[in-house]
Amino acid sequence: MNKKMQPKTLPGFMELLPNEQILFNKMRETIQKSYEKYGFLPLDTPIIEDANVLLAKAGGETEKQIYRFEKGENDLALRFDLTVPLAKYVTEYYDKLNFPFKRYQIGKVYRGEKPQRGRYREFYQCDVDIIGDGKLSIINDGEIPSIIYNTFKSLGFDDFTICINNRKILNGLFNSLELEEDASEILRIIDKIDKIGIDNVKNELLKSVEKEKVETIIKFICIDGDNDSKIKSLEELNIDNEVFQEGLDELKQVIKFVKIFGVPENNFKIDLTIARGLDYYTGTVYETFLDKYRNLGSVCSGGRYDNLTEYYTDRKMPGVGISIGLSRLFFQLVDNNIISAEKECISDVLVVSMTDEYEACAEVARKLRDNNLNVQINIEEQKLGKKFRYADNINVKYVIIMGEDEVKNNVVTLKNMITGEQNTINIEEAVKLIKE
Amino acid sequence: MNKKMQPKTLPGFMELLPNEQILFNKMRETIQKSYEKYGFLPLDTPIIEDANVLLAKAGGETEKQIYRFEKGENDLALRFDLTVPLAKYVTEYYDKLNFPFKRYQIGKVYRGEKPQRGRYREFYQCDVDIIGDGKLSIINDGEIPSIIYNTFKSLGFDDFTICINNRKILNGLFNSLELEEDASEILRIIDKIDKIGIDNVKNELLKSVEKEKVETIIKFICIDGDNDSKIKSLEELNIDNEVFQEGLDELKQVIKFVKIFGVPENNFKIDLTIARGLDYYTGTVYETFLDKYRNLGSVCSGGRYDNLTEYYTDRKMPGVGISIGLSRLFFQLVDNNIISAEKECISDVLVVSMTDEYEACAEVARKLRDNNLNVQINIEEQKLGKKFRYADNINVKYVIIMGEDEVKNNVVTLKNMITGEQNTINIEEAVKLIKE
Repeated sequence: MNKKMQPKTLPGFMELLPNEQILFNKMRETIQKSYEKYGFLPLDTPIIEDANVLLAKAGGETEKQIYRFEKGENDLALRFDLTVPLAKYVTEYYDKLNFPFKRYQIGKVYRGEKPQRGRYREFYQCDVDIIGDGKLSIINDGEIPSIIYNTFKSLGFDDFTICINNRKILNGLFNSLELEEDASEILRIIDKIDKIGIDNVKNELLKSVEKEKVETIIKFICIDGDNDSKIKSLEELNIDNEVFQEGLDELKQVIKFVKIFGVPENNFKIDLTIARGLDYYTGTVYETFLDKYRNLGSVCSGGRYDNLTEYYTDRKMPGVGISIGLSRLFFQLVDNNIISAEKECISDVLVVSMTDEYEACAEVARKLRDNNLNVQINIEEQKLGKKFRYADNINVKYVIIMGEDEVKNNVVTLKNMITGEQNTINIEEAVKLIKE
Repeated sequence: MNKKMQPKTLPGFMELLPNEQILFNKMRETIQKSYEKYGFLPLDTPIIEDANVLLAKAGGETEKQIYRFEKGENDLALRFDLTVPLAKYVTEYYDKLNFPFKRYQIGKVYRGEKPQRGRYREFYQCDVDIIGDGKLSIINDGEIPSIIYNTFKSLGFDDFTICINNRKILNGLFNSLELEEDASEILRIIDKIDKIGIDNVKNELLKSVEKEKVETIIKFICIDGDNDSKIKSLEELNIDNEVFQEGLDELKQVIKFVKIFGVPENNFKIDLTIARGLDYYTGTVYETFLDKYRNLGSVCSGGRYDNLTEYYTDRKMPGVGISIGLSRLFFQLVDNNIISAEKECISDVLVVSMTDEYEACAEVARKLRDNNLNVQINIEEQKLGKKFRYADNINVKYVIIMGEDEVKNNVVTLKNMITGEQNTINIEEAVKLIKE
C-alpha cells in the first residue's frame, strides 16, 4: 500500500463542521434577503482577476498581502475586497447598467495576512453599494443605516448602535485650524481617548499644536448629548470653513433621513470621532457596534466615496456603501457564546427501518418529501440503537421508525427526539405533527 | 491626470449582468433547496488548499490545468473539483462526523483550460455525496436518481432522462470475454455507435477481437426495450462471471428503489452504454439528458466509487454522488434560448418622487419594507421620464409615484408597468395589489 498523505486544511482558512455551516449559511442568507429587500442587485464577479487591474489602486499593505501568481502568460491575482471588482465592473459594463447602480455582493476575498485567532486569509465580505453616474443624492447616505438596522435586526440583534459621522467635518475643522498636515497624527492621538482619558489626549496634543487650537479640538471631541444637541453644538462652534459647513449640512440631511427610513433613535448616533482611515472615504462614514460587545470592534462599516473608478476612467462615479466581514463576525459571535451552532439541523425528520423495511422507508420518505419536508433516510444495515445515536448526533427533531407492524397496518411510528414522545399514526398525521 | 488602466475581466471567467445573475442565483438556490430536501448537510471548504493535498491523486490533464502557486513558504493550489476537498474533509474530521455522511457543496472550482465558448476556467459545481464508513448500502444508489429528478423538476424541466448503468456489468462482460485489457479501446469504438452505426462498430471491433466475442458484445449493446426487458435480456446473456452478476444484482436493486423513491418511468432508464471514464467509478453510474436538447450532453452525472479517501487513509470509505456543472449548464440554457433572463427583477416596487417629495418617498419605502416587500427608491434629482426609463430597464413591475397631491392626501399613485394601469390609493391597498 502507498504511504498516505495526511490531509490538512491550511492555517488561516475557515472550515466549519456541518452544524456550524448551517448556522453560517443562515446568517449569510439573512444578510442576502435584507440586501434584496432594499432593491440591491446581485453580483458575482470572478475571484481571479488580472493583477494589473486589481492593483491599479492598491499599494503598501494590500500589495504585500495579495495572492498573486502567473499562469501561462497571465499575471493573475485573487481579489482582496469586493470594492475594486465593483469599480472594474461598473467601468466595464457602464453602457449596460442603470444608474444609480445598486448592487450587493457576498463572496470570499483573500489576504495573505499572518494568521491569527479569528483573522482569516480567506473570508466572506457582504457588501452593498450605490453608485451614481456623475452625482449621487445625499439621501442615499441616509438610507444606508436603515439597511444596517434591518440586517442586524434580522440577524436577531436588538442592542446595537450605528455610529455616523462626516469626514468633511473633521477635514473642515483641521482646515480652519490650518492643521491639515497634522490631521492623521492628531486623529491617532484622539483615537486613544478611551484608553488614556481626555486630559492625556490634551497634553499629548499640546506637544505639537498651539494651545488655542487644542482648545477648539478638545471642545469638538467633547461634544456630547443626543443627536440634536450634537448638531446644535457643531453649529455653535461657528467654524468659518466651507468644507466644515458642507459636512455639517450633509450630516443633518443624513440624520433626518435615517429617522424617516425607520431606524429607532437608540440604534444610531452621531459619533464625531470615527474617521475610518484617511485616504478612502470622503463624506459620510459609518461604524456599527454591538452595545454589549463593544470590544468586538465595528461589525459593519462603510461610507461615501467621491470617485470609485478614478483609476479606470475619467467618468465621475461617486458611491456609498457598507461591508460586513461575515467570517470574522461569525467567529467572534461563536467564540463569545453569543450564538451557538450546537442544535442546528437541516432535516425535519429521519426515517429508519426497525429491521429491513427498506422499501417502506423509501416510500415514506417520498411521501414526506412530496409534502415539502426535508427528509433523511437511513437504510444501512445497522442496529436500531446506532441509528438513534445518529439521529441524536445530527440534532434531528423527529424520527420515523418503520417496522413490521407499521408496514402491515400502513402507519408510521413518529418519535419526538426532544420530548421522547412516540406515536403510531398515519402518515398524514405525521406530516401535520412535524410541520407544527 | 493619470493615464487610465482599461479594466477587463479575464477570458474564460463568467461574469453576468445583474438580470442574468438574478436568474443564475435562482437556479443555484433551487438546486440547494432540492439537495436540502434530501437531508444533505452544507459544506464550504476553502478554495485554496495545500497543493500536495489537492494533487495527491491527480495527474495528467488535471495537473496541467491546475492553478498552483507559492506564497511565502506555502505550495498552494486552487481546487479543481469538490470531490478531492470532500475526501480531505472526511479524513480530517472523521471523528466529528456522522456516517453515512451526506453533504452538498455548491461552489466555484478552477481549471486553466483553453477558454472556449461555454467552457469556463472558474465555474460552479453543485455536488451531493453520501459517504459510508466501511460500507454503504446499494439503496443509496437508488435514492440518487430521485434527487436528480426532484432537482430538475424544481428547475422547471419535465422532459429529461436519467440514464443508469453499473460499471460492474461492463467490467464483468469484458472479464468473461478475457478482454479486460482492450476494454477502453472497445468502449471507445462502441461510443461511436450514434455516429457510424452498428455495422461499422461491428467491423471495427472485428479488426482486433475474435468473431464470437464480437457477437456477444454486439448482442449486449443491442439490448433494448423497457427497463424490465433490459434486465431480462441481461439475465438471458447467461454470463458466467461474478462481477457481471454482482453488477446485475445491484442494477436490479437500484432500479427497484428508483421507482419506490418516486421517479416516473419516463424520466429514467437503464443505458448499458454509459461508462463515465474508466478509472474513477466502480459501480452505479448516472448521466442525465434533456430529451429535447440531447446535444447539450449530460447535465448531471455521477456514480458510486469504492474508496474516496484512499490517498489519505487506509480506512475504507465508499461513496455515491452526483454533480451539476451549473455555470456551463446556465450558459447552454441561455445560449439555446431555453431560459431567458430578460425580464428578471429583484425588486417588487420602485418608489419615485414627482418633484422633490423625498421625505414622503422614504416614508413610503419604509412602510412597504415593513410589509416584507423588496423596495427600491429613486431619490435622485432627475426628471420623471428618466426615472420611468430606469424602472423599465430594471424590469420592475410596480412604480409608486409620490407628488404634491399624494403627500397632501396621504395616498400613493401605483402604476403597473406591464398593463399601464394607474391607481391613486392608500398604502395598504397598494401593498395588497403588489403582493397579488
